[in-house]
Amino acid sequence: MKLIRYGIAGQEKTGVIINSTYYDTSSFGEDYNEAFFANDGLSRLQAFIKQNEQNLPVVAGTERLGAPVARPSKIVCVGLNYADHAKETNATLPVEPILFLKASSSFSGPNDDILIPKNSEKTDWEVELSVIIGKKASYVDEADAADYVAGYTLHNDVSERAFQLERNGTWDKGKGCDTFAPTGPFMATPDEIEDVNNLRLWLKVNGEMMQDGTTANLIFKIPYLISYISQFMTLLPGDIISTGTPAGVGLGFDPPVYLKPGDVVELGIDGLGVSRQTLVAYT
Amino acid sequence: MKLIRYGIAGQEKTGVIINSTYYDTSSFGEDYNEAFFANDGLSRLQAFIKQNEQNLPVVAGTERLGAPVARPSKIVCVGLNYADHAKETNATLPVEPILFLKASSSFSGPNDDILIPKNSEKTDWEVELSVIIGKKASYVDEADAADYVAGYTLHNDVSERAFQLERNGTWDKGKGCDTFAPTGPFMATPDEIEDVNNLRLWLKVNGEMMQDGTTANLIFKIPYLISYISQFMTLLPGDIISTGTPAGVGLGFDPPVYLKPGDVVELGIDGLGVSRQTLVAYT
Repeated sequence: MKLIRYGIAGQEKTGVIINSTYYDTSSFGEDYNEAFFANDGLSRLQAFIKQNEQNLPVVAGTERLGAPVARPSKIVCVGLNYADHAKETNATLPVEPILFLKASSSFSGPNDDILIPKNSEKTDWEVELSVIIGKKASYVDEADAADYVAGYTLHNDVSERAFQLERNGTWDKGKGCDTFAPTGPFMATPDEIEDVNNLRLWLKVNGEMMQDGTTANLIFKIPYLISYISQFMTLLPGDIISTGTPAGVGLGFDPPVYLKPGDVVELGIDGLGVSRQTLVAYT
Repeated sequence: MKLIRYGIAGQEKTGVIINSTYYDTSSFGEDYNEAFFANDGLSRLQAFIKQNEQNLPVVAGTERLGAPVARPSKIVCVGLNYADHAKETNATLPVEPILFLKASSSFSGPNDDILIPKNSEKTDWEVELSVIIGKKASYVDEADAADYVAGYTLHNDVSERAFQLERNGTWDKGKGCDTFAPTGPFMATPDEIEDVNNLRLWLKVNGEMMQDGTTANLIFKIPYLISYISQFMTLLPGDIISTGTPAGVGLGFDPPVYLKPGDVVELGIDGLGVSRQTLVAYT
């Protein structure tokens, strides 16, 4: 299945994509949130669709897309999880995953504008593969980790490098600004993805290719990450793990290149669609 | 007003404390969550209580207390915000607030057990004054910050020092373990607190006083913190800011002292009550 949410921000309706057509599933009566995933929502939704496929309203192509799942209880991000990206930022390779949390208030739709924060001069991009957790995960064995995956989605882990690295303290200041987590266009359940460890992911700024990598180069793979994170905190249904970005971010250029109002960022991952954001100054 | 939540974990009912008696306010029909605070819930609750005071059921003293507000969208913590604590951990005084996020899955009741994580040897305590946000706060001026405060509560910012400091990456790994945020017993609205900048806060382990400080020594005061944090992320109604801890944590001793199964931690802040947790090994 491919899940979408669409409509006015904060009042999104649910839907699914079937053979490239977007259908509304509002009549299923549940948002794609913690309770949905916790109560076997994916199986129930699948049964609902099977029964109602002929009657589902088509969603107009003009509709805004929201993030494909409701705002999660937490967004856990993995830092420096591609060797080429670690190198470009002059960081040493991590011996175990670097984790940080992204404020969930940054969560936004795949094609929403990215607001450049006030006093920001170093807003940067990061294409990432994100994992959506399907059930409560605490002290999970790596061998069992796949059971905890609800699906995958595309995420731009937008980052303000001065806030992140030059403002005293942890990275969290530069990662959770409003609109800094454009997510989607859709969540694909695992059966939709042939090999999650062999997906091309790329990002363009104003049409120019900046990042062009493959999840084959993830240092720590998804089952390891789920197991690892679950040693430190319980992952709840609907929570998101963002697995890190390959080389080609603005910080890695000499001199660095950052986003300015009017810039357009496009990104994509094989099988997980494409998103597109325009940069706008916060006023 | 003094707000409480009580009953089975995850199914808490709401209540208030009036003249030391705990009353159930379930018939008000709303949890103390984001929507409650966003929709002027405190004023509506006050009117409801005035109208129904004679009919509110008394809560049995044997009931478990939950955290006094629903799980927030985020818990933003301030590091090293008391000069004496910065000194004891050999840290330099911060020139601007150090921020980190505590996974909201760590949120728990004031007298719930603290689970010592598997593979933990350095579970530590931190008594803190927490602020509960009353309305959406983005780019707030320091002079207006008081308008954004719904109330105050007591928080033990439990911390695993090895996870926080020795496991590669940000502090978030050691701050968000399950049960690491015992919160309450109640939320006091600002009118209940005479001077939030002059509150004694203390913490005992097994009856021995370990922390004994005053909010007069906060390096960055609450209005400054609200304004500062709101430059980096939007604070949502019901979100929590935890303002830092004074000297006397286990990490500050030579050699350090950490919590073990069976230990009892008691903590309190003037006007915000007392909480008590027993340490239990995660099994």
